[in-house]
Amino acid sequence: MSHDLAAALDIGGTKIAGALVDAGGRLLVRAQRPTPAGQDGATVMGAVAEVLGELRAAPGWQRVAAVGIGSAGPVDASAGTVSPVNIPGWRGFPLVAEVGKVVGDLPVVLVGDGVAMTAAEHWQGAARGRDNALCMVVSTGVGGGLVLNGRLHTGPTGNAGHIGHISVDLDGDPCPCGARGCVERIASGPNIARRALSLGWRPGADGDASAAAVAASAAGGDPVALASFDRAAQALAAGIAATATLVEVSLVVVGGGVAGAGELLFGPLRRHLKGYAVLSFVAGLEVVPARLGVDAGLIGAAGAAAGARGLWAVG
Amino acid sequence: MSHDLAAALDIGGTKIAGALVDAGGRLLVRAQRPTPAGQDGATVMGAVAEVLGELRAAPGWQRVAAVGIGSAGPVDASAGTVSPVNIPGWRGFPLVAEVGKVVGDLPVVLVGDGVAMTAAEHWQGAARGRDNALCMVVSTGVGGGLVLNGRLHTGPTGNAGHIGHISVDLDGDPCPCGARGCVERIASGPNIARRALSLGWRPGADGDASAAAVAASAAGGDPVALASFDRAAQALAAGIAATATLVEVSLVVVGGGVAGAGELLFGPLRRHLKGYAVLSFVAGLEVVPARLGVDAGLIGAAGAAAGARGLWAVG
Repeated sequence: MSHDLAAALDIGGTKIAGALVDAGGRLLVRAQRPTPAGQDGATVMGAVAEVLGELRAAPGWQRVAAVGIGSAGPVDASAGTVSPVNIPGWRGFPLVAEVGKVVGDLPVVLVGDGVAMTAAEHWQGAARGRDNALCMVVSTGVGGGLVLNGRLHTGPTGNAGHIGHISVDLDGDPCPCGARGCVERIASGPNIARRALSLGWRPGADGDASAAAVAASAAGGDPVALASFDRAAQALAAGIAATATLVEVSLVVVGGGVAGAGELLFGPLRRHLKGYAVLSFVAGLEVVPARLGVDAGLIGAAGAAAGARGLWAVG
Repeated sequence: MSHDLAAALDIGGTKIAGALVDAGGRLLVRAQRPTPAGQDGATVMGAVAEVLGELRAAPGWQRVAAVGIGSAGPVDASAGTVSPVNIPGWRGFPLVAEVGKVVGDLPVVLVGDGVAMTAAEHWQGAARGRDNALCMVVSTGVGGGLVLNGRLHTGPTGNAGHIGHISVDLDGDPCPCGARGCVERIASGPNIARRALSLGWRPGADGDASAAAVAASAAGGDPVALASFDRAAQALAAGIAATATLVEVSLVVVGGGVAGAGELLFGPLRRHLKGYAVLSFVAGLEVVPARLGVDAGLIGAAGAAAGARGLWAVG
């Protein structure tokens, strides 16, 4: 029996997804439960165990060589614990040890969800073959991860690439994280919607006041909706340029719901980047959409485990 | 004859320094020329050749295994060229090839001056034994470099860690680099002095309007001088927190003339860091002064060459 598969878990505030993943990044078996996010920690872990139970019942389980977990953050890969903002029952929860109890002797690798998405885009998506890249998600939050020198850069705790919470406006609005003027505070979907409303934009007859509705208005030429996207793009550009200037990446991959607005976001983002990514070694920075969709978390968790354990080449 | 030394060059707008450096980071032989910064490129290279000529005449030269160059930036290590802002005669100047002509078969390794300082502090200074650190210089400009996963992170072009030109104030004052609100634009010595003057600070009888003079006033309790240092510290804190959040460093080493102000800078810097480095994985960030002085560039150039060529352990 060859051990040529990774088991993957993608843990978020809405759902807990699992899969068996092969060396080509294909999802062979899937399992999923809603996250009982409002329940106590043991109940949330019970849902994880159910997902793992389904995977263990699949014939491919005997081929699994490692388990990769991508989790909503903050995570602490060095301690094996997670404290997802949207799962209050888990604070310093020993997820690696608890998963280890379920899966027996298999090695368990934990990374943050931004790092997992980055592993996926590097292994199978838009950053494939690139040695230095920033991958990010612009959605309800803003997260990301880094590929440096051809390898996933996780940082000691698995949180590296946390671009949503760098300040690009040191005197700016307070962010729920405790800092001010964070990229996420300006560029996330809810903040795009909030800003549009505060500038006078009003939702249509359906009452939809989401960033997607603002995007629809922007696509129709609404100047306030366009202005809110432009400001988000400016903050993303400042954060992306800072990242490139600090670590030298030549590619930025942007996914997530807000990136679904397409050129409404990418157009002003590329224009603002010309104003912030100005030094010679960052002026050629490319910005492209992510290629992998909702499965990126699972693919990336598998890829991160495979990379960390040397199961197969993922870069 | 063992090959157990590195030759080092430290190239700046004021002086061109050279040395032979041993595996303990000791400078065995030194040479130096003023930089003919206003002259044509060939004349500047002539001064470099004179420095190398002195080193080659030293008995230790036969033991040299590699040549390390730390240069004022921008540099392009991948192309082997430099374009130092303060040496207008060198634009895309093929320094690696020109030094190669002088030194014959020896390998030549080029890094930016911020990376060189970082290599020095990691090898022999305040970041010794640390696997993840940001080292920086706050002086006429603001530069830096990164140690990640126990190794110097140069980036493909040798410019990584360029913290002086990340924007922490996306709507802020235009920076000579072309961006806005860069850390250097707020926190460098000349900008500390400029801001103090604009807020009403006046130099003493000696007419000294430098950052050092502002520091002296601040030490005497002058509120405007203190405010200018506080604003510099705030910008440094935002930039340092961004760096730690992006790559996960646990240590920041700060050197350079402005850092010579001691607690006038480090006090407000640590206080402001509490406001920006807030996520769990960066909240424990340490900030310490650099240990190496004016020789850091030479020690680091040697260390970078030794590290890149595997001459001896430098981490």
